[in-house]
Amino acid sequence: MEGNKFVFQSIGIIHSPHKEISKIPIQPVFCNDVEGTVRLNNEYAEGLKDLAGFSHIYLFYYFDHSQKTCLRLKPYLSDHEHGIFATRAPHRPNKLGMSLVRLDRIENNILYIRDLDILDDTPLLDIKPYIQRFDSRENVKSGWQDIVSDDVASVRGLRDFKSQKGRS
Amino acid sequence: MEGNKFVFQSIGIIHSPHKEISKIPIQPVFCNDVEGTVRLNNEYAEGLKDLAGFSHIYLFYYFDHSQKTCLRLKPYLSDHEHGIFATRAPHRPNKLGMSLVRLDRIENNILYIRDLDILDDTPLLDIKPYIQRFDSRENVKSGWQDIVSDDVASVRGLRDFKSQKGRS
Repeated sequence: MEGNKFVFQSIGIIHSPHKEISKIPIQPVFCNDVEGTVRLNNEYAEGLKDLAGFSHIYLFYYFDHSQKTCLRLKPYLSDHEHGIFATRAPHRPNKLGMSLVRLDRIENNILYIRDLDILDDTPLLDIKPYIQRFDSRENVKSGWQDIVSDDVASVRGLRDFKSQKGRS
Repeated sequence: MEGNKFVFQSIGIIHSPHKEISKIPIQPVFCNDVEGTVRLNNEYAEGLKDLAGFSHIYLFYYFDHSQKTCLRLKPYLSDHEHGIFATRAPHRPNKLGMSLVRLDRIENNILYIRDLDILDDTPLLDIKPYIQRFDSRENVKSGWQDIVSDDVASVRGLRDFKSQKGRS
C-alpha cells in the first residue's frame, strides 16, 4: 500500500482573529480568550445534530501554509531537535492539523469556538467530539514535554501573541 | 475555498489482529489486551526521534473500507440517531480515523502498540503525541455519551469482539 494517495476535501472554513502565523499560540490551552467560528458547508449541517451537547470538540484541518516537510525540528517549547511525530508542528508528511477547542454554541451551520489556535481561513476537514471516557487519560508520560515546566510552556507557548482580552 | 481538495498519502501500515470490522471494539479503551504494530515507511523513520518517551499517542488513518457518507446514524452506544460529527463513526465526509493508543516501544521504524481498535492493513496518515497539558481536559460535557453508563458502554462498545487475552 506504500505510496497510496487519498483525497480529502474541505468541508468548511475556520475563521479566527489570527491573521499571522507567528502570532498564534502553539496550542488551544494558551488561547483561552480567543474566539472564532467554524462555517461548515451547508450540505453537511445535518451532521451536526447533538454536537452542541459536547463542551469540547476536535477540529481537524489542513495546514495549507506549510510548504515543506521537516522530519526533525526544534519546537517552540524546546531547545532541542525532536522527530516531527513527537511534536504537533505543521511541517508533517501529511499536513493534518488537530486542535482540541471549546464549543460555545451552534447556530445552523456555524460553530462558535473558544480557545482557537488556528489561522484565519483554514480549510476544515473533520470534526469529532471529545468524549471524556475515551480521550482523557491518566498515568500519562509525555516524553520531552514533561521536562518543560508549566511556567515556561505558558510563556513560550504564546509565541508573539498579544491577548485579545478586552477587545470588542 | 469550497470544494478544495487535498491529497494525503499513506506513510505506513497499521497491523492488528482485527481482521473483521464487526469484531472490532469501537474504541481503544475497550481494547486493552489487543497488541499490534505500526510499520512506518522507512523514509519517515527519522521523524520518530523522542516519540518513545510518550506513553500514549494518536494514530491517524484512512477508513479505507468506508464506501459511503452518513450524515446521521445510530452509533453502537446509542439507540438514537446522532449527527456524524457528534460520533466517531467511519462514514464521515472525509474518512479520517483517530485512535488514542498506548505506545509500548519503538524498534527502528516499527511501533509496538497496545489498545488497538483498528482493522489490519489500515493505511497510516499521521502520528501525534498525547500531551497531558494539551489533551487531558477537566469540566467536560460529553453530550449524548454522558447518558450512556460506563457499564452499558463497556458491553456495547465491544461489539462482537472476543478477548485475545491468553492467546500467544
